[in-house]
Amino acid sequence: MPTAPIAPAPNTAGCSLPRPLPVLGDEVRAPIADGGEIGYAALDYAASAPALRAVWDEVAAYAPYYGSVHRGAGYLSQLSTDLYEESRATVAAFLGCRPDDQLIFTRSTTDSLNLLAGALPTGTQVFVFETEHHAALLPWAHHGHPVTYLPAPRTPGQAVATLVNALADAAPGPKLLCVTGASNVTGELWPIAELATVARRSGARTVLDAAQLAPHRPVDITALGVDWVAFSGHKLYAPFGSGVLAGRADWLSNAAPYLAGGGASNTVTAQDGAVGVVWNDNISRHEAGSPNVIGAFAIAAACRALTDAGFEQLVAREEELLAVLRSGLATVPGVRQLALFGPDAPRVAVLSFVVDGWSSEEFAKALSERYGIGVRDGLFCAHPLVRTLLGPEGDGGRAAGCDGPLKAIRVSFGVGTPAEHVERVVRAVRELVAEGQPVAAR
Amino acid sequence: MPTAPIAPAPNTAGCSLPRPLPVLGDEVRAPIADGGEIGYAALDYAASAPALRAVWDEVAAYAPYYGSVHRGAGYLSQLSTDLYEESRATVAAFLGCRPDDQLIFTRSTTDSLNLLAGALPTGTQVFVFETEHHAALLPWAHHGHPVTYLPAPRTPGQAVATLVNALADAAPGPKLLCVTGASNVTGELWPIAELATVARRSGARTVLDAAQLAPHRPVDITALGVDWVAFSGHKLYAPFGSGVLAGRADWLSNAAPYLAGGGASNTVTAQDGAVGVVWNDNISRHEAGSPNVIGAFAIAAACRALTDAGFEQLVAREEELLAVLRSGLATVPGVRQLALFGPDAPRVAVLSFVVDGWSSEEFAKALSERYGIGVRDGLFCAHPLVRTLLGPEGDGGRAAGCDGPLKAIRVSFGVGTPAEHVERVVRAVRELVAEGQPVAAR
Repeated sequence: MPTAPIAPAPNTAGCSLPRPLPVLGDEVRAPIADGGEIGYAALDYAASAPALRAVWDEVAAYAPYYGSVHRGAGYLSQLSTDLYEESRATVAAFLGCRPDDQLIFTRSTTDSLNLLAGALPTGTQVFVFETEHHAALLPWAHHGHPVTYLPAPRTPGQAVATLVNALADAAPGPKLLCVTGASNVTGELWPIAELATVARRSGARTVLDAAQLAPHRPVDITALGVDWVAFSGHKLYAPFGSGVLAGRADWLSNAAPYLAGGGASNTVTAQDGAVGVVWNDNISRHEAGSPNVIGAFAIAAACRALTDAGFEQLVAREEELLAVLRSGLATVPGVRQLALFGPDAPRVAVLSFVVDGWSSEEFAKALSERYGIGVRDGLFCAHPLVRTLLGPEGDGGRAAGCDGPLKAIRVSFGVGTPAEHVERVVRAVRELVAEGQPVAAR
Repeated sequence: MPTAPIAPAPNTAGCSLPRPLPVLGDEVRAPIADGGEIGYAALDYAASAPALRAVWDEVAAYAPYYGSVHRGAGYLSQLSTDLYEESRATVAAFLGCRPDDQLIFTRSTTDSLNLLAGALPTGTQVFVFETEHHAALLPWAHHGHPVTYLPAPRTPGQAVATLVNALADAAPGPKLLCVTGASNVTGELWPIAELATVARRSGARTVLDAAQLAPHRPVDITALGVDWVAFSGHKLYAPFGSGVLAGRADWLSNAAPYLAGGGASNTVTAQDGAVGVVWNDNISRHEAGSPNVIGAFAIAAACRALTDAGFEQLVAREEELLAVLRSGLATVPGVRQLALFGPDAPRVAVLSFVVDGWSSEEFAKALSERYGIGVRDGLFCAHPLVRTLLGPEGDGGRAAGCDGPLKAIRVSFGVGTPAEHVERVVRAVRELVAEGQPVAAR
């Protein structure tokens, strides 16, 4: 592996925007097809964001003090236990948790939502739009709950109306709405507070998939009126194998432990060939095994760094860059930006598009090989949504007779992105489209 | 947090042993009760070991190159995907995996064993000694499988005979033995190859809980004849939230995915209010969500570092230090070392004991506060085993009328431990016992 100097990213000359927050990798150079190299433009933040330098520095400062938590008698065990629980409190504050909420450190959003799916009371009816990311779409039926899949809405208001109708038809009993905060395909913001209000009125609870929302907007569980929120560290600039599920304690405390093992078990007895177990009913119940202390600490460090930077300024900067991206791509013929709610809906810095005459895979490859730009192509673990957005003809490649499944190209960025990366991708798309891509060359 | 210089640990003056491997934290100083401070002696490796400096350095070198894996088109995505899969191959080679084995990155041993518990064919009869760590003891019934709890054996031979008898009585159908490689309480090595042979003869499969074995001895899944092996990164000097389950693919490929979400799902379709999913049947099936790339890479780095250092030398060094500890404690009156198989059974650097007239909690506290030594007191998530070892009277504190549950004190160490730490704990135990601890003072 080449050695990578760790230093702040240069801003674009003459750019009026505030500087990006320093992230690891902001000086990495990528090889390009002409034999040279170029500063790597990481534009796949929606999959995994680079670590904030502030997060890395905090982890590096803590790492020598890492020790076993919760049951060790030594200095570093005590210190690590304190840090772990302080991290929990920091993240809870970042999310605006209520005093009685529990915050469980998991491995990821996927893990958080599967944990919750396993903790729902028997017979809970789940309501979920078919447009969700698979992590939000699939766990409920996987755990045996009856699920009402709601059709793709084409406006936020239609989403609310769809939920109202579905809940009106629902039988009595526990109910849950799972909904995303910001789409991982279109970046569009969903009307969370309105949906949660509708749910609450019908006695349904709401879990917010904030995987794409938390890195881009403040998330306040109390203000939004949701019951739980889930997100991933690796999308929040803290890629150390941790995630979060935070929210109401009652269903969690009454459910079987997520994993069976130490930490979750309070007392275990063996007698006459039988083993009895009393599970903890506190926060440890769903954190069996040794906690990922560094991962939890890293998420807390990210929360601190984003708060310190000022989320309002970060949002303003992101929106300006997003406007550059969207208006830039809008001027390129044959580029179709994907949207569920239309061009004017508010959104975060996640944008998917297709290009006439190109397969998305080949286009993404060209962006990488010729411009050092890292994007993603595919269906983004949201197959029904992308198919809805692409329509029956799919991407340009498919329309042009290429092999392979329907796909799109996704550009996503965040607090570490310099303006130059966004400008570069707009220029690259324009140049590639102008050159055209002979089908025979693929 | 105080700043901690990162530099190799000093060896004890005059010691003939090879130097310890450098670990993070080996220069951390702990406050002690006299108002001064002392080099922290981390002797709770069995709970969580410090990161090897080699692991940290590799992670730090990789971190700027971290990118989303598997579906990203960019340079860092490709590089990270390659590193992730290379890490899988490195760990598989470290474990002596067979060509057809699957290696799944999990979060911990607890996670690995719960994953396997959820993947067993319906009706699998599980055989497990009641002396196991809760992570190996509890997942099977938790997932609804019938479990035969085998009584505590007092010799390795008795363990084998107990299993032979239990399997002879078993009904036809799939069977699994879950057994530890080295006890997290006594450090004693279990007769894995013999048990696996017995199991195989009866058509039972074996999963090895190597959480405590892998950091101390080479583990060869092929040579041992086991079907699966599970261990944790944080006990193997790689505390980045990752673990491993490696072994036979068939049951895993046929089981429902561990988590429902992206990565595990191959194709998802929505039509007329129904959602259909085709799950992957390859290694991705049980790795839903974004992989913990840094965690996987860190485990691979630890495997490289231990292999490079020469496991044979590491074992010889550990055994010499363990002899110092055991013979030292043996000369202190009123100290009882706990053992299931007796004093001569082979073991790794994990040792539990009780002290006449002391509660284990107070003793561990005194070791920390007066000597800067970090040990653990408690039942070590192996309640039935520790209760068996303590006997009806429990630890000295309990015998002396103290409140609180039965407990023991555990000292554990590894490749980063300088001889001085072991010498210090022997001296500390001797001094504390000589002083005595008035019950009234507790």
